[in-house]
Amino acid sequence: MPKKLQYFDLNGLAEPLRYLLHYTKQEFEDYRHDIATWPDPKIKESLPFGQFPVYEEDGRVLCQTLAIAKYVARGTDLIPSDPWENALAEQAVYSITDYHKNVIACIQEQDREKKSEMKNKLINETIEYYFSRLNKLLNENGGYFSGKLSWVEFVLCGTIEASNLFFSLQIEKDYPAIKAVMEEITSAPGVKEYIEARGPYNLDGIRKRFGDI
Amino acid sequence: MPKKLQYFDLNGLAEPLRYLLHYTKQEFEDYRHDIATWPDPKIKESLPFGQFPVYEEDGRVLCQTLAIAKYVARGTDLIPSDPWENALAEQAVYSITDYHKNVIACIQEQDREKKSEMKNKLINETIEYYFSRLNKLLNENGGYFSGKLSWVEFVLCGTIEASNLFFSLQIEKDYPAIKAVMEEITSAPGVKEYIEARGPYNLDGIRKRFGDI
Repeated sequence: MPKKLQYFDLNGLAEPLRYLLHYTKQEFEDYRHDIATWPDPKIKESLPFGQFPVYEEDGRVLCQTLAIAKYVARGTDLIPSDPWENALAEQAVYSITDYHKNVIACIQEQDREKKSEMKNKLINETIEYYFSRLNKLLNENGGYFSGKLSWVEFVLCGTIEASNLFFSLQIEKDYPAIKAVMEEITSAPGVKEYIEARGPYNLDGIRKRFGDI
Repeated sequence: MPKKLQYFDLNGLAEPLRYLLHYTKQEFEDYRHDIATWPDPKIKESLPFGQFPVYEEDGRVLCQTLAIAKYVARGTDLIPSDPWENALAEQAVYSITDYHKNVIACIQEQDREKKSEMKNKLINETIEYYFSRLNKLLNENGGYFSGKLSWVEFVLCGTIEASNLFFSLQIEKDYPAIKAVMEEITSAPGVKEYIEARGPYNLDGIRKRFGDI
């Protein structure tokens, strides 16, 4: 059952998927496009909604990070079985996604003055707004959004690492429950070895594409 | 088991939830705040992420449209049981949500010139981009995203109706598969009677809050 994940050589939207695949010990081709030369019109046109990440399995194609995350985690205990606990996990993941839309908007903004305004608001307001609430939700449920580790904490971890890379931050240091669950994920068997082999990311490609962040 | 949905007296993000609750014959309190005077700081502060819609059941509170939609549809055949079919449905719903973010950004934009640009791009490019692809996905799967009617077609229907109201459009007329599934939902027992009793929406409240759209 050949599996392939396509994204850029960045954490961004794909790192939660890579973590989930490594954590659940699934073999996959981790194909990384060059963001500096993206979009390639021919490839873009071939994607369901013109966007990465895209996941392929047995010739079937799936897009959208969260749909892929849920699919690759299927059949494991990373999907909460109780409907209310599942809803709590999904409530958190959509709030994480809402946060990340601000990050993407800031990176893609071309007007330097507007970009600087957006970055300031993100760093000084938006991060605290979302992550204080997400940290509270973790604390209310034994350190996890739905009472035990689920696919959603992987999305949280990858999303924060992307912001940390883009804006030279260490967001989790102010949110102990978030920090704890990120440490749990990044030191887990499978994920730990992947991170060591991968080494750190850099912003060279994204700077070539979008200029300074 | 008292259920309560809080939103504004608008279709917006809540109409898919109202349709799902009526379609599945669940009694609930359909509480509608006045958008013209929103935000009320005290209420906003009490919400998990400061946003409507919010759903309550037995004193437990859930936010985020898609988390609520999945939760209220649980245990019905509106949730695809096959993991790949479920992934196809979720791929579609996240693309619908990506589309709707453009609508919300346009409505909330305060700069008149920028707003006009955003509205033109939305009407002349974004709508065709997303709905031609969503229409194609429906056609490829027998008229539904996952092979049969799911919660995701309810989200599609409510999302398009909100754009139609905001921008005086009739988006579905150019997309036959979308039009067919919207007609199926709005004429279904439960939903049909709700729409008749509800009557049409208007933009009075939203104009008071945001000015002309």
